[in-house]
Amino acid sequence: MTYQADTAFRVDFEPIGRRAEVVPGETLLAAAQAAGVGLVAICGGAGVCGDCRVRLVQGELSSATGAERELLSSQEREKGFRLACQAVPLSDVKLDIPPESLSAPQRLQVEGQEVEMEPDPWAVPVDIEMDPPSLHDLRPDYARLQDAVEECGLPRPSAGLSRLIDLSEQLRTQGWNVRLALRGGEIVAVLPRGTTLFGLAVDIGTTKLATYLVELAQGKVVAKAGAMNPQIAYGEDVVSRIAYTNQQRDGRKILQEKVVSSLNDMVVDLCAEGGIAQDQIVEAVVVGNTAMHHLFAGLPVQQLGMAPYVPAVSEALDVRADEVGLVLASGGYVHLPPNIAGYVGADHVAMLLASGLAEAQTTTLALDIGTNTEISLAVGGRLLSCSCASGPAFEGAHIHDGMRAAPGAIERVHIVGQDVHLHTIADELPVGICGSGILDAVAEMREAGILDRRGAIQDGRPQVRSRDGKPEFILAPAATTGHGRDVVVNRKDVNEVQLAKAAIRAGIEILLAEAGISAESLERVIIAGAFGTYLDVSSAIRVGMLPQLPIERFRQVGNAAGAGARQMLISGKRRLAASQLIRRIEYIELTIHPGFTAEFLEAMYL
Amino acid sequence: MTYQADTAFRVDFEPIGRRAEVVPGETLLAAAQAAGVGLVAICGGAGVCGDCRVRLVQGELSSATGAERELLSSQEREKGFRLACQAVPLSDVKLDIPPESLSAPQRLQVEGQEVEMEPDPWAVPVDIEMDPPSLHDLRPDYARLQDAVEECGLPRPSAGLSRLIDLSEQLRTQGWNVRLALRGGEIVAVLPRGTTLFGLAVDIGTTKLATYLVELAQGKVVAKAGAMNPQIAYGEDVVSRIAYTNQQRDGRKILQEKVVSSLNDMVVDLCAEGGIAQDQIVEAVVVGNTAMHHLFAGLPVQQLGMAPYVPAVSEALDVRADEVGLVLASGGYVHLPPNIAGYVGADHVAMLLASGLAEAQTTTLALDIGTNTEISLAVGGRLLSCSCASGPAFEGAHIHDGMRAAPGAIERVHIVGQDVHLHTIADELPVGICGSGILDAVAEMREAGILDRRGAIQDGRPQVRSRDGKPEFILAPAATTGHGRDVVVNRKDVNEVQLAKAAIRAGIEILLAEAGISAESLERVIIAGAFGTYLDVSSAIRVGMLPQLPIERFRQVGNAAGAGARQMLISGKRRLAASQLIRRIEYIELTIHPGFTAEFLEAMYL
Repeated sequence: MTYQADTAFRVDFEPIGRRAEVVPGETLLAAAQAAGVGLVAICGGAGVCGDCRVRLVQGELSSATGAERELLSSQEREKGFRLACQAVPLSDVKLDIPPESLSAPQRLQVEGQEVEMEPDPWAVPVDIEMDPPSLHDLRPDYARLQDAVEECGLPRPSAGLSRLIDLSEQLRTQGWNVRLALRGGEIVAVLPRGTTLFGLAVDIGTTKLATYLVELAQGKVVAKAGAMNPQIAYGEDVVSRIAYTNQQRDGRKILQEKVVSSLNDMVVDLCAEGGIAQDQIVEAVVVGNTAMHHLFAGLPVQQLGMAPYVPAVSEALDVRADEVGLVLASGGYVHLPPNIAGYVGADHVAMLLASGLAEAQTTTLALDIGTNTEISLAVGGRLLSCSCASGPAFEGAHIHDGMRAAPGAIERVHIVGQDVHLHTIADELPVGICGSGILDAVAEMREAGILDRRGAIQDGRPQVRSRDGKPEFILAPAATTGHGRDVVVNRKDVNEVQLAKAAIRAGIEILLAEAGISAESLERVIIAGAFGTYLDVSSAIRVGMLPQLPIERFRQVGNAAGAGARQMLISGKRRLAASQLIRRIEYIELTIHPGFTAEFLEAMYL
Repeated sequence: MTYQADTAFRVDFEPIGRRAEVVPGETLLAAAQAAGVGLVAICGGAGVCGDCRVRLVQGELSSATGAERELLSSQEREKGFRLACQAVPLSDVKLDIPPESLSAPQRLQVEGQEVEMEPDPWAVPVDIEMDPPSLHDLRPDYARLQDAVEECGLPRPSAGLSRLIDLSEQLRTQGWNVRLALRGGEIVAVLPRGTTLFGLAVDIGTTKLATYLVELAQGKVVAKAGAMNPQIAYGEDVVSRIAYTNQQRDGRKILQEKVVSSLNDMVVDLCAEGGIAQDQIVEAVVVGNTAMHHLFAGLPVQQLGMAPYVPAVSEALDVRADEVGLVLASGGYVHLPPNIAGYVGADHVAMLLASGLAEAQTTTLALDIGTNTEISLAVGGRLLSCSCASGPAFEGAHIHDGMRAAPGAIERVHIVGQDVHLHTIADELPVGICGSGILDAVAEMREAGILDRRGAIQDGRPQVRSRDGKPEFILAPAATTGHGRDVVVNRKDVNEVQLAKAAIRAGIEILLAEAGISAESLERVIIAGAFGTYLDVSSAIRVGMLPQLPIERFRQVGNAAGAGARQMLISGKRRLAASQLIRRIEYIELTIHPGFTAEFLEAMYL
């Protein structure tokens, strides 16, 4: 490998038309990350997931590494496919990014249950009029305002330094006649008289961000927006991102700034849509899993990445918006609801709250399915929770032709006789399989006898062929796909689904056993989250992921975490409920539970 | 004026050897500020003080402005002297900066009264040992630490986000065995077991910074340092700096960062001298006049610059060190004691505290003399304060050959018969007159009959000559000075001293009248501050600035503000005393006092 030192090479990313410069020795993935190109990099650039495929169109790259020879077929390599995390430019290059390697565009879920409740927000408006200062009344601006609040019969208010910094100008601009937002005893905003107060609810998913602009007095959502979590470029799952922060100096700071910067962009858009000024947003509630929570707040995650996986902080935090860099009213606060454990975060708390599990009289199971699946069980006044490492199969990762739920992803599979019927997102030509598609495929293949109960692919079907001596099932032949390659399901893919569904099922069984009840007693099963919204419940039952119960007991609730965040945004009572719920939860650590391994092995069968 | 667009010119400042680049159109003063050259600019670059004299050695400058023709003599202009705030480079230039135009080096006062008191600091050390987390004990790091503190019988502590950010790493690095600094109920530092806690006392003067590193448990000063206030480059007095922030976008931020950056440099030096780590400094107390207080905290100063001159905030503030950018322990606090009024700041409060005025049984007058002079009178349990605009004459400004108390400044004048005896700082050849020098000069000239009681210069002395038809007194002839020019005192200089001393005396008389006592009743007169340390009390009495009292009643106490800051640093009781003192103070606004004008006019006479 030779290259001219001190030269920057240009990298063109097609078809999206983004351009980056790399210094010699930097990989294509680094270039993509620097340019904001959302290349899929599930393993965080370690060269093990094989997802960051790109095709060299023009120019010269370093020769293929061992990882590339292992993860790319010789035909793919002949066509110019490379792994972006391995290949290093030796000249200016032009690349083609196949759709399945791009993390966006993608379905973004911001819908969810509507919040029906009486608002009692922490921040309330108070209109105040003052006499201006004169040589006969030399009270400082802040004391003058405090006096005026007291004269209204309210307790003397406080204010943080960041709020005081533009107080003098605001009082003068508004002629000593203002609307305050008072949060408890604290002044968090000084606004023109009569201004409406707003709040921001945020759900930081590992993959997606969902934001809601809420009018506080009525609790009405006036605008909402979704976006990809920009941290994806630094690792698709929580573990890769933690690894990134361990390896990269300032990595934690970079991830923190990335997510906050995206949220700030969304706030600008929400304000434009809602026709309001940013300083009308006096409070935010932010939920996410424990790692997302920590990364948002700038808290350390290293200890979350190694046994015994403890959070730095679990209790609810109220931090000033400017401490985390969120641009709201200059004295505004961010409320971070409590986490349950290292792998059961505030988003699960919010989901439990929105699903009514805090007050549930019925025996209810609630699941948040993802790379990590959080499960809670409400029964007879008890509330048990656990977390299982279900892996990224349902995010489309670790699957040979897996992809996330983007256009062209196979999301429904139906096998009728010898025919395979497929449905793709946005009705585009198939380019891969997303989580609900692989679940469907396994359920249908098992039903059609293509899989045995151990998950082995049975021969004797036209779609089953052998590759390197191992059987694989052709879901979509090359002639029918968007990229001209077969979309297949192989033994390893089936195994990934088995591992995922077994982990979830074992978690459910352990909670039932701990509560001393059988699955039959479950009156309601709530399935939340993006994958939970789109999965086919009957497929999930057929593969054994969910217990065999009448289908009407299941409810797919969408982004319940966002709904819970909105509840806590508009209601102090709901924040209190969250804190009380936390104290009641019995957290079961599955990795040291004596019954877990047996349940898990049992649940591996299809 | 012609110059090539888009070209940067180089400016060499000699003899200090600093180099800067300017874009065409920028003044020499802007170049000096950008390069950190401490050019005197009392008027903030408005072209009215004539202090930023530089001499062109090489290259081409824009032609002289009206301001320059007015403020520089034709001889000076012939020698190449220019005003840096007016002249714009038309090529690369080399400049010579005369000593009197440089704001440093200069005497820096960090001495002052010693603090003799029982320390009761707000931040105290607590040693804590914890069990490390395990799969059977999954408590989050923060909760584990809180539990351990509770187990010691202390209330459950809190911690700010900035403190939590490195908590997990510190607990692990120190093997779950740490010394906490607890401030009230809050964790402000996590240190290795047995570490000593320190505090920082700071006096931000308009001209100088004084810092003290104090061991908290014993109250011992282990290191101290002085430096110039770097804001001087943006205007020498408070009014010019306020004007700068009004004119310059981000001006407030620039001034805030300049002073904090200097303090941070001093903290590094203090820690090196004291042999300690920066995170052992868990608390700071910062005092300054109200404008310095506001600029340090990032608070607005615009309203301090226009009638009725009210502070944004007067009450004591406790802000996190990282909110203002001060680098101490990551959870450390800065305590800002209360201000009294727009022109009577926390430094005066600290001085009153250090001088014992809060508890004074004797009738005591205390003065802080500067561009603004703060005066307080303790009598019969009452405490009266006022502020008078004494002008910058005692800082050496607005005086024809005035300069600050730097080497070569005439600080003592004695006229014996026809002879004039001078003493200069550092015994260098005279280059100008500092505050104590001009006060002495006027007192001696009056005594020698060179001035009449109205301040007019009388002819008939060899040192008295006429210039442009007006008499002036040659204090040091050109042949004896460091720069080869005469050092003179003219009618306008005498008038500046009269204005300054009359303002101070009128303030004293108004306080005495408000208290219903005569000057004779004053048992003690305390004079604080740099000028107050060096002034000759008998000269001050002779010109009528101070009342005629036996000399032993006067005490020159040096930097009493720094001593008061140290008291509040090591003692919660002294902070309480400051707050109580503030509430007792009767502030007299002189500008609307009916007796002020008459007292002022009367006090103008010599």
